[in-house]
Amino acid sequence: MTTMISDSTIQAIRDFTEERGWAQFHSPANLAKSISIEAAELLECYQWVPEAPAAETGRAQEELADVLTYCIMMADALEVDLDDIIMHKLAKTKRKYPVTAVRDNFEEYEARHLEARKLHGNAK
Amino acid sequence: MTTMISDSTIQAIRDFTEERGWAQFHSPANLAKSISIEAAELLECYQWVPEAPAAETGRAQEELADVLTYCIMMADALEVDLDDIIMHKLAKTKRKYPVTAVRDNFEEYEARHLEARKLHGNAK
Amino acid sequence: MTTMISDSTIQAIRDFTEERGWAQFHSPANLAKSISIEAAELLECYQWVPEAPAAETGRAQEELADVLTYCIMMADALEVDLDDIIMHKLAKTKRKYPVTAVRDNFEEYEARHLEARKLHGNAK
Amino acid sequence: MTTMISDSTIQAIRDFTEERGWAQFHSPANLAKSISIEAAELLECYQWVPEAPAAETGRAQEELADVLTYCIMMADALEVDLDDIIMHKLAKTKRKYPVTAVRDNFEEYEARHLEARKLHGNAK
Repeated sequence: MTTMISDSTIQAIRDFTEERGWAQFHSPANLAKSISIEAAELLECYQWVPEAPAAETGRAQEELADVLTYCIMMADALEVDLDDIIMHKLAKTKRKYPVTAVRDNFEEYEARHLEARKLHGNAK
Repeated sequence: MTTMISDSTIQAIRDFTEERGWAQFHSPANLAKSISIEAAELLECYQWVPEAPAAETGRAQEELADVLTYCIMMADALEVDLDDIIMHKLAKTKRKYPVTAVRDNFEEYEARHLEARKLHGNAK
Repeated sequence: MTTMISDSTIQAIRDFTEERGWAQFHSPANLAKSISIEAAELLECYQWVPEAPAAETGRAQEELADVLTYCIMMADALEVDLDDIIMHKLAKTKRKYPVTAVRDNFEEYEARHLEARKLHGNAK
Repeated sequence: MTTMISDSTIQAIRDFTEERGWAQFHSPANLAKSISIEAAELLECYQWVPEAPAAETGRAQEELADVLTYCIMMADALEVDLDDIIMHKLAKTKRKYPVTAVRDNFEEYEARHLEARKLHGNAK
């Protein structure tokens, strides 16, 4: 089971950026692009197969690490706290999908998810 | 400045999944898709403009939270430790871009980055 | 100015797939992943800079070609006609953004686009 | 079976942009972001399930149309011809995956694909 992302890890990422003078490139827009790019490299491990081949286990871990690293840089760029934004959004998602409504009921999940999509789709 | 993602936040995400019986959907492949989907929603805040409009600051934070939440679920699915994979990859990236080579030298960064791309491009 | 994608190009893509026996891998879900992966490789050309470096002009063209190729394969997998779906969606988008409302008025575009996002964001 | 994307469809997309005065927003970088964003909306149809639910067939078609529309705009922005770049890249891909090597041999495909990834992974 995974455990926390520690302050020392976050500091190591900041030091990495600082030492190279790369903060100038880390606008929110550039970091958003970077997160999408690394997310797609992670997805590539599962492009044709449901499970990443054994030879690529390490690759999936590295791509996931890349996504997380850019997310941490983005939190710094947006000046938000990771725990805060995760817990804030989780509270909202819980309200959207109450346990009593969606447990053992994929259709109800779909309906609530599709509801959002339809609104989105109509307007867009 | 952001601080750690705490054990209690990670546990809250696990409880959320468990209570809804959703672990069955959280294969690495499905989570990889989910990370890409949420990353693109974050990118959408910067689609036409370098800075997200003020009215959307909250949206960018929520989309970043979504990416992080799926990353934490993915670490559980892959049975890896977040701190471990981030620090392991950071060590590798440091070796690729030594401070003395790339500081104040975007061209050298580009060359090292392009090197990877060219190999990739040739073979692919 | 670009011109049409011709029937012979579409046939060449079909022959490529057929000769290799790869139709078995071309489920809509796998092709959707592939389109996202190639789209991100295209995005990578613009990760840190607004314009792709001259040395990478060729790369941007190749990545765009990859996205298009998978899109054509997807149209076959979904058994839809490219011209039909593009013109059908364009008609819908025209209704969403009438010329009189959005011309020289980025704020009105944003409002109509944000409207969709807000509905989406609330429900999701 | 799908047929060509006709000149009249491409012209309709150009007219749409022109009438709204939107060419100013269609830099290659912005269009690359847009392609990724729409690709992820297409992927969302297959987020948890291998097949899009029947209720969403129309949505998958519309999202595919969005990806294609931005690709056509991008070809204009890059001043390249769609048929040319697709056929040029296809020739390269054919050389990478000769029929005699990869037909009925997913492992050989994987090896050639992994080869690219490894080079990419090492350098990156």
